[in-house]
Amino acid sequence: MNASRNWLHRPAAKLDRDAKQAAEAHQAALTKPPGALGRLEDLAIQLAAMQGVQGPAVERIHICVFAADHGVAAEGVSAFPQAVTAEMLRNFSRSGAAICVLAREIGAALEVINLGVVNDPGPLDGIRDLRLGPGTANFVRAPAMSEEQLMRALEVGREAAERAQDSRAQLFIGGEMGIANTTAAAALACALLQAVPQALVGPGTGLDARGVAHKARVIQRALQGHEGYLSDPLEVLRRLGGFEIAALAGAYIRCAQLGLPLLVDGFIGSVAALCAVKLGEGAGDWMIFAHRSTEPGHARVLEALGATALLNLHMGLGEGSGAAVAVPLLKLACALHKDMATFTEAQVSERL
Amino acid sequence: MNASRNWLHRPAAKLDRDAKQAAEAHQAALTKPPGALGRLEDLAIQLAAMQGVQGPAVERIHICVFAADHGVAAEGVSAFPQAVTAEMLRNFSRSGAAICVLAREIGAALEVINLGVVNDPGPLDGIRDLRLGPGTANFVRAPAMSEEQLMRALEVGREAAERAQDSRAQLFIGGEMGIANTTAAAALACALLQAVPQALVGPGTGLDARGVAHKARVIQRALQGHEGYLSDPLEVLRRLGGFEIAALAGAYIRCAQLGLPLLVDGFIGSVAALCAVKLGEGAGDWMIFAHRSTEPGHARVLEALGATALLNLHMGLGEGSGAAVAVPLLKLACALHKDMATFTEAQVSERL
Repeated sequence: MNASRNWLHRPAAKLDRDAKQAAEAHQAALTKPPGALGRLEDLAIQLAAMQGVQGPAVERIHICVFAADHGVAAEGVSAFPQAVTAEMLRNFSRSGAAICVLAREIGAALEVINLGVVNDPGPLDGIRDLRLGPGTANFVRAPAMSEEQLMRALEVGREAAERAQDSRAQLFIGGEMGIANTTAAAALACALLQAVPQALVGPGTGLDARGVAHKARVIQRALQGHEGYLSDPLEVLRRLGGFEIAALAGAYIRCAQLGLPLLVDGFIGSVAALCAVKLGEGAGDWMIFAHRSTEPGHARVLEALGATALLNLHMGLGEGSGAAVAVPLLKLACALHKDMATFTEAQVSERL
Repeated sequence: MNASRNWLHRPAAKLDRDAKQAAEAHQAALTKPPGALGRLEDLAIQLAAMQGVQGPAVERIHICVFAADHGVAAEGVSAFPQAVTAEMLRNFSRSGAAICVLAREIGAALEVINLGVVNDPGPLDGIRDLRLGPGTANFVRAPAMSEEQLMRALEVGREAAERAQDSRAQLFIGGEMGIANTTAAAALACALLQAVPQALVGPGTGLDARGVAHKARVIQRALQGHEGYLSDPLEVLRRLGGFEIAALAGAYIRCAQLGLPLLVDGFIGSVAALCAVKLGEGAGDWMIFAHRSTEPGHARVLEALGATALLNLHMGLGEGSGAAVAVPLLKLACALHKDMATFTEAQVSERL
């Protein structure tokens, strides 16, 4: 891999300590018992530190959904047929998918990128066609991606982050769609966390216990096949990842470099975040974790990231849907921070 | 107590089973793996059963905050001075309090009712003055309320629910404000759940461990003082409750009779919900529990109600704030239910 990867290793922007302190002082002055708004206080302070202002705002939101197919689907690791990835692209195009409804409801800009599905759906309104191939290779037999594909997938994510920044977005949300991508995500997490498949595998879109056990064996075979090549996170991502997971990691790394707060979705988003943290210095500072999904491995990945998710609503859809559902919490945290009266303004007595 | 209490014992409206089944069938047809929207699916189905339509909506929301003082504040059970209750009424009037900001952000109608504070703040814009006395009596020494005060407080809640219904609200949220009201709520929960104070007492607005232990002893003395009179839930509410807690219970009972979905806030709201369930047949069917607060007794009360809260954001403010923060989840659940494409519409393959 050559010079084109240099951008990956630039450090993340620094959080603004002065803005953070000013926001903390302001929270302490608002007419409520100290800490009574709980994580909404933390969110306002965290966003202040990220945005470099005492009074943060989350009005302009950029959602980018990356879709791609996975060669490992051939091993029978998903409850749904591979054709669904391309079919869902059409559904995104027609605004029928969950993330389309949520983006509209929260007032977010939504872009969807086809990074490579097996069945080319042809040109679709509102879908950016950046295919890197007809899905990844089956990583049980070969590396999922070539070096060129990996670099390009990371760059697609980088470019999405830059478009978000150019549109003056105050928050970036990455989503994904790809049949069998919980298998890729679990394999990546196993390699990055030195964990056994049983600890990170789950039903995905709806496998039964037998299907989950089969999925764990498939991942185990893949890990054995790539043994000796799994010490470098970038090589792990190339061998076991997916186009959309690499794009998410690239987007997260670039958001952190640009100082753009990012809201991480579920299991796959969090595994991409783990890749980003392993690759990009300080990237974790720019991440807010939206929700804990039903995928059993998610808790382990969040723990490795030192993260506590905002929501636990038993969701497990992907597409960025859990992140979109958490956006109102960020908006309300900002509104409370900005508009509540202080004890002095309201002439309310402070504690005894 | 006489005929004026008869309304309390009318049964709740029935949930609409047909609408529920239609909503369940519709959820199963939407383009997502079954159950992938988790509790948002449950919410859409629950609201469909409550509103009697396949496609529920939460556009018109009525928030009523009941404020009152508590005689038991004289026992030194709060981290804040009693004057704060009246001061916060002024803060509500000037839109400086958390619930004012949240109501505006979620597009809800907000009314605030002064049920009796010690320091009469005089007429205030936007505050309904329905004082029943200068706070309750200190329940360590006497019943908190007379029978007339209790009945009137319940009726104030009933009237609030009826105003919500008259304004075609699709959701009712009750809030409260009153220094020392976690002490009253914990005492009520002890009596209704036959629990010891240590299991239900907490820091409220910010007591330290010594303060919490003192609060538990105060409640213990009160429970001993009223021993032998705590088998009837209405008498429990009269002896240990507060004007605002009784009003919440009255509002909840009436919402259930009217078939108006209600979103319960934190510890005090949940104790009022417990009173409502003990008093009003079927009232629990109409309750959605917004959040689990930091007050340690809340988990126990939720458990007694068979409830799992939607959010756990370490909030503990009251005012209906936790319920208001959960409203976007209900709105998004309804939007997804209404606007997502079905597998058939989108021509997406179903599971293998």
